[in-house]
Amino acid sequence: MDAQKYMLRCLELAQKASEEDEVPIGAVVVDPESGEIVSEAYNLSEHELDATAHAETLAIRRACEKLGINRLRGFDLYVTLEPCTMCAAAISMARIKTLYFGAYDPKGGAVVNGVRFYDSPTCHHRPEVCGGIMEAECGEILKRFFRNKRRKI
Amino acid sequence: MDAQKYMLRCLELAQKASEEDEVPIGAVVVDPESGEIVSEAYNLSEHELDATAHAETLAIRRACEKLGINRLRGFDLYVTLEPCTMCAAAISMARIKTLYFGAYDPKGGAVVNGVRFYDSPTCHHRPEVCGGIMEAECGEILKRFFRNKRRKI
Repeated sequence: MDAQKYMLRCLELAQKASEEDEVPIGAVVVDPESGEIVSEAYNLSEHELDATAHAETLAIRRACEKLGINRLRGFDLYVTLEPCTMCAAAISMARIKTLYFGAYDPKGGAVVNGVRFYDSPTCHHRPEVCGGIMEAECGEILKRFFRNKRRKI
Repeated sequence: MDAQKYMLRCLELAQKASEEDEVPIGAVVVDPESGEIVSEAYNLSEHELDATAHAETLAIRRACEKLGINRLRGFDLYVTLEPCTMCAAAISMARIKTLYFGAYDPKGGAVVNGVRFYDSPTCHHRPEVCGGIMEAECGEILKRFFRNKRRKI
């Protein structure tokens, strides 16, 4: 299944983040027509000194830059964790066609949890949503990261 | 009143945006201790080919970069329009102390309208909020911009 292939790549990116002591979340933007991965990113808010440098927002910025467009109509976004409110809104703003995510995030998610932004009348583009892809693996890499963090304290 | 002084600067930035055919929204990040404006920005989503290049998010990114920090604890943010869902969440993520905004935005706002993000249990930092500063002027520059846009069609 294609979705798993892209999610595996997101997991590899999350692993890289973890090795750099960043919260292990990975994302890719995909052209579903060609199957090509257009941009890749992982969380960089510590290294980039930028509170907004979440994997999804970075993947969107990089795809826009690479393609020379400011809307990603027809493109899909894959990410290991249910997007937070900022990223859910950025995904809508970028006009992403389908959002695929791995683990659910009851504490910070904004798609099926929290503010459920795509159900709000102030959301002007609703992507298709497919959650729970490789949910266990996507959740486990985060749990491991925070378990190790706590050990170091 | 200090808030009006900073909002006037935001309005000047919004005016610059308008002259560059960008949606006229301006924002500044201020150090309330010194009174210094740390960063300034206006909407650039057309020119920067970046769906996420809203005034508030850019002002946050620039302030983080300038100060070499990834959280803006103790800093204030001024913006001419009630922030959208993405920016409201970015402001929370950046740990902004007080958010001052001009016009209210029932269609796209996320502070007192829409998802009211700061009231959500998935919001982990709630800035103080002060809305309606120079509301008429901040609203008028946007109305004028869109009125002229429609004339050109």
